Amino acid sequence: MTPHTEVRGPGDILQLTMAFYGSRALISAVELDLFTLLAGKPLPFEELCDRAGIHPRGARDFLDALVALGLLDREGEEIYRNSPVADRYLDRRKPGYVGGYTRLADTKLFPVWARLTDALRTGEKQVPSQGGFFGGYADPEAARGFLGAMDAVNGGVGHSLASALDWTEYSSFVDLGGARGNLAANLHGAHPHLQATCFDLPEMEPFFQEHMKSLETTDHVRFVGGDFFTDALPRADVFIVGHILHYFGLRQREALVARIHQALAPGGVVLVYDRMIDDDRRNAALSLLGSLNMLLTSDEGREYTPAECVRWLSGAGFTDIRTTAVSGPDTLAIGRKPR
Amino acid sequence: MTPHTEVRGPGDILQLTMAFYGSRALISAVELDLFTLLAGKPLPFEELCDRAGIHPRGARDFLDALVALGLLDREGEEIYRNSPVADRYLDRRKPGYVGGYTRLADTKLFPVWARLTDALRTGEKQVPSQGGFFGGYADPEAARGFLGAMDAVNGGVGHSLASALDWTEYSSFVDLGGARGNLAANLHGAHPHLQATCFDLPEMEPFFQEHMKSLETTDHVRFVGGDFFTDALPRADVFIVGHILHYFGLRQREALVARIHQALAPGGVVLVYDRMIDDDRRNAALSLLGSLNMLLTSDEGREYTPAECVRWLSGAGFTDIRTTAVSGPDTLAIGRKPR
Repeated sequence: MTPHTEVRGPGDILQLTMAFYGSRALISAVELDLFTLLAGKPLPFEELCDRAGIHPRGARDFLDALVALGLLDREGEEIYRNSPVADRYLDRRKPGYVGGYTRLADTKLFPVWARLTDALRTGEKQVPSQGGFFGGYADPEAARGFLGAMDAVNGGVGHSLASALDWTEYSSFVDLGGARGNLAANLHGAHPHLQATCFDLPEMEPFFQEHMKSLETTDHVRFVGGDFFTDALPRADVFIVGHILHYFGLRQREALVARIHQALAPGGVVLVYDRMIDDDRRNAALSLLGSLNMLLTSDEGREYTPAECVRWLSGAGFTDIRTTAVSGPDTLAIGRKPR
Repeated sequence: MTPHTEVRGPGDILQLTMAFYGSRALISAVELDLFTLLAGKPLPFEELCDRAGIHPRGARDFLDALVALGLLDREGEEIYRNSPVADRYLDRRKPGYVGGYTRLADTKLFPVWARLTDALRTGEKQVPSQGGFFGGYADPEAARGFLGAMDAVNGGVGHSLASALDWTEYSSFVDLGGARGNLAANLHGAHPHLQATCFDLPEMEPFFQEHMKSLETTDHVRFVGGDFFTDALPRADVFIVGHILHYFGLRQREALVARIHQALAPGGVVLVYDRMIDDDRRNAALSLLGSLNMLLTSDEGREYTPAECVRWLSGAGFTDIRTTAVSGPDTLAIGRKPR
């Protein structure tokens, strides 16, 4: 079950009102870096509080709330340890770390969502145009935070993409808007015969180089800088477009899909993924809410349904189009350029 | 299922991070008074947007997110109506309205929870001492908002209390810290033979008079003003103490329970309810998080377990003590003063 389940009684209304309590407890735990402190090393209550800098007054309730949320385990009354999922995904030193997204929620998402009513009334984003949602690449720390958050969200998708195609049929791919190359490096790691390209704005390149170095994947993935609406796209057998289309308006989406079709080798495929809304628009609460996040943070963005995505791909000339659920709330659409 | 369910995989961590999206969608819907607008009267999309003042850009996603959350129903693609639960509890003109709590979440709870890490580090509340959490009774609008929120939370409890005892055995009750008398009036309505008293601080009286007038229950409930720690308590057969003990420190709780024991008629009973934590402190996520809300908003408050409550009641001389779940996340403890 998800935090966005259906309201059935008055108690559920109050619970939905208070749903953010859980977000904030997680955000504080990540801010206090509790899960890195406890990684592989259970600690007794007092020592844990000392080392994490938690005052005794709220400590028991805070830690036991994390137990109830499935983020910590408690042995008897005294010994706290990470739950398996927290140990794997919230220890800052592990590659699966998703706490970057939690930090982004603290510093950017939480304040901007407090302005939802304004956005609904005006139809306008609630972040500055200059620097945008996370402050812009001119501030390297802010940029790294945002990129880490995006890697957290994309982490699970990499695995799904690695098995979404028979990659032996293809020799190259481009991850369009591939940021600092995290997904491209993962996919290359799973299929080392692929020539891997990360295409993003030129100002991304230093972050890409830094990240490849930290992953020890330098030379495995090539970076091509450019604007995917106006600059020439590299030719490749496969184009990946993940968490990109949702940021733009309809005409830009259609234009981008047409440009990808042109750049693809005949017989090549496009992989589009986003947190798509169910076609009936009644069930995917988190996707519909995610679409409001695009309202809050972009000029024309929103999430979309698989049926809409199929229409754009088909309109650009793609065939054999199919859609499938991938990691978490994402849906993947696959289309082929005829030979 | 609740919004505070256990995390089992990395996707759940991201969902918990984003749990506040759902809170904010509900908060905006209540702020736009959507459910009052739709009460008993379905509207087509465009008319609904016009009347609620929602810009077309985010409107579909917002309304369909409310459908997915169970707050609206949609007929075909065009007609939106309240879900039964929203119609009953979120129409401002109905007595069951719980939107006051949602408004409080917007203006007070959401900002104060952004300071959770500070509270955890210092053990100190994050609201001003002067005026406290909601601004104090000197600001009548703020006070009414807070009182409406408390009535929303207590609304369901009134029904449970009405059937928690064989009330024919008793002739009077006092609701201690009974605020503007909402619960006392409900309980008197269910059992009109009872002499009903609402005891609260003297500055509450105008709000009490105003609320009794609006409920048309003037003369059914008596108001006694005073400080329950220092002033004489009225004598009665039953004392109700709901959502009171959690606000105070241990010594004050014990002192208050002892004072109630003294004021009760022999053979009388005390009813204590709060959002109690499970005795093992592993399961009641919302209560444990609610306890952090007391950390954020009070000097020494926190939630507590049924076992702790039984200990205080027993220490004061109560017998035949039992605890039972009541409305929503609340637990009720009942103790008897021996004849």
